[in-house]
Amino acid sequence: MKHSPHLSRLIEALRTLPGVGPKTAQRMAFYLLQEGRPGAQALTAALGAALQTVRRCQRCRMLTEETLCSICQGTQRDAALLCAVESPADVVAIESSGSYRGRYFVLMGHLSPLDGIGPEQLGVRELEAILAEGTVRELILATNSTVEGEATAHFLSELATRRGIRASRIAHGVPVGGELEYVDGGTLAHALAGRQLL
Amino acid sequence: MKHSPHLSRLIEALRTLPGVGPKTAQRMAFYLLQEGRPGAQALTAALGAALQTVRRCQRCRMLTEETLCSICQGTQRDAALLCAVESPADVVAIESSGSYRGRYFVLMGHLSPLDGIGPEQLGVRELEAILAEGTVRELILATNSTVEGEATAHFLSELATRRGIRASRIAHGVPVGGELEYVDGGTLAHALAGRQLL
Repeated sequence: MKHSPHLSRLIEALRTLPGVGPKTAQRMAFYLLQEGRPGAQALTAALGAALQTVRRCQRCRMLTEETLCSICQGTQRDAALLCAVESPADVVAIESSGSYRGRYFVLMGHLSPLDGIGPEQLGVRELEAILAEGTVRELILATNSTVEGEATAHFLSELATRRGIRASRIAHGVPVGGELEYVDGGTLAHALAGRQLL
Repeated sequence: MKHSPHLSRLIEALRTLPGVGPKTAQRMAFYLLQEGRPGAQALTAALGAALQTVRRCQRCRMLTEETLCSICQGTQRDAALLCAVESPADVVAIESSGSYRGRYFVLMGHLSPLDGIGPEQLGVRELEAILAEGTVRELILATNSTVEGEATAHFLSELATRRGIRASRIAHGVPVGGELEYVDGGTLAHALAGRQLL
């Protein structure tokens, strides 16, 4: 059935959200226009405000409303450690593990020549500027464990070593608490190749 | 980790959407503020416009931007048939089956005294006004097959029969194309009790 124009436009607009198909978009639209009206008002306001204020940190490219994000501003952070990740969500994930006290650099993607994503799109010039400062001693490469993520890590590691900065890659292996039986072959191969002496 | 205020507010606002938890909301927010910016602009505009313009049809309570929805306006519809459903999504579902040519009445919920939802909240007064016109010959009760949906259907059927209008309930049984083996006991019981002679 044909919805009224504004309703169709809302359903279409909701489909832009990741993981939202036509059925979910319709369900969301109906919800927002019925019981969810107060929430919908809050959502328009919040989205509008965020679009206007949230930009990238001028140093690490994390999403923030200020010139520098809270991590780059923080004085408690170890400036000798820099961790390169693909997305802001990765920063959130590592931060919530509570096991890292250095700073970050958010690439906002990975090298993907076919999609026109080269070093410039990943902010490599800004990354080099940070490395040129001379405070960073180790660049930790925490890009995803995909072909593109590995290629990006390899590219960045060369960038660092050329400047005499140590480059490291996060370990890949069996997840903690995971059972060997259910771990895929590629991960097991990584876990064996990366075994450490006790 | 603590997000910047506008970002947190956006994530919080996205959680109002049905089926969206904290992780999905964060993923949506990051997407909207990065690659999804054009879509995000469209979404704020569409949601704002829809909130301002979309109201309920004055006759059947379906969501629409006009005084009467397209179905109530339609002259091709059989005015003798009225189908009561719980939500606008149910109207969409029945319409897309292409098997119904009558009109609808959208209750926007079901009887639920504990939640303060009585006949008035379901628009029973408006429904009675339509029935009082004398054109409706049959009220088809297509509320959900839940305890509340059944109670609502029962309540409305009495309303109709009191006026000499036929009340009917949609059939419940084995889904078409479904295998008996995987159908739950309650549905099977319904299917058996509602068997028809060939």
